[in-house]
Amino acid sequence: MFTGDGKGKSTAAFGMALRAYNQKFSIGVFQFVKSPKWKVGEEAVFTTLAGLEGAPAVEWHKMGQGWSWIKKKSDGIDPAEAAKQGWDEVKRRLANETHDFYLLDEFTYPIEWGWIDIDDVCHTLTHRPGTQHVVMTGRRAHPRLIEVADLVTEMRKIKHPMDEGRKGQKGIEW
Amino acid sequence: MFTGDGKGKSTAAFGMALRAYNQKFSIGVFQFVKSPKWKVGEEAVFTTLAGLEGAPAVEWHKMGQGWSWIKKKSDGIDPAEAAKQGWDEVKRRLANETHDFYLLDEFTYPIEWGWIDIDDVCHTLTHRPGTQHVVMTGRRAHPRLIEVADLVTEMRKIKHPMDEGRKGQKGIEW
Repeated sequence: MFTGDGKGKSTAAFGMALRAYNQKFSIGVFQFVKSPKWKVGEEAVFTTLAGLEGAPAVEWHKMGQGWSWIKKKSDGIDPAEAAKQGWDEVKRRLANETHDFYLLDEFTYPIEWGWIDIDDVCHTLTHRPGTQHVVMTGRRAHPRLIEVADLVTEMRKIKHPMDEGRKGQKGIEW
Repeated sequence: MFTGDGKGKSTAAFGMALRAYNQKFSIGVFQFVKSPKWKVGEEAVFTTLAGLEGAPAVEWHKMGQGWSWIKKKSDGIDPAEAAKQGWDEVKRRLANETHDFYLLDEFTYPIEWGWIDIDDVCHTLTHRPGTQHVVMTGRRAHPRLIEVADLVTEMRKIKHPMDEGRKGQKGIEW
């Protein structure tokens, strides 16, 4: 679990996915964000890595454009409904032990907004079968999420260039 | 700059290197650590990435085994001397604009121990030519280092499984 206001939460989580990849872990990335523009750099590299010989499976699913496993799509899908669909799929995969490593990016927000039930999340994580690893990111992690997590790091912002009105930079911010 | 006692400093820095790679930035990784065992997962993946068609240059240098550009090696090399050699090379490369992205991993320690001069580091970073990006990791970053850095995130440990005596896990800790 990487939480807090500082930079590096998702970046650290994707860094962990790199290690998992190197150990041939099957990886499932689930981005619980609206904008499909985010983390394109990471996605491009993992797509490349997934295509190499002997590579483990790497699946990358984004809520923003509608989850890939949902056939019927509508532009006006309710984000609360979409978030719930994402979590239901993650639950199914955890039950089936589909992946070795799950990255639930920006997962704290749909919980914060009450779209995904915190009791259900805690129960599912605590009782997940096998040795599946689940890494979550996002600000203001629910205290119960911190309770069930093994490893929690808070990223605290000490200094950020955008504080001084500077713009994000290619290759650094995205 | 990623500092603090929490997990994810180097992992976040390598995640940033992923983004840099995706933007075709030339990358230089310099690990200022004694043990060559660390971060082997990341190194393996970046070595793979560097070998792909159209990939930018990725160089990976480790102090632990003696820097690769130093021909004359001795097993009993003084770590203070080795750290200084590493920094001298980084300085030369910054002056020559050799890379677009530098990762100085665990760089805060040789500074803390007085092996590398903080004035020299601050002056070199402040006056580096072009648009070279430098990312540093390590605990207890020197206050002057925080001053010259654009972006500083402190990783604060909230919870770590090893606190409860559990061992590190493959694909997660390495």
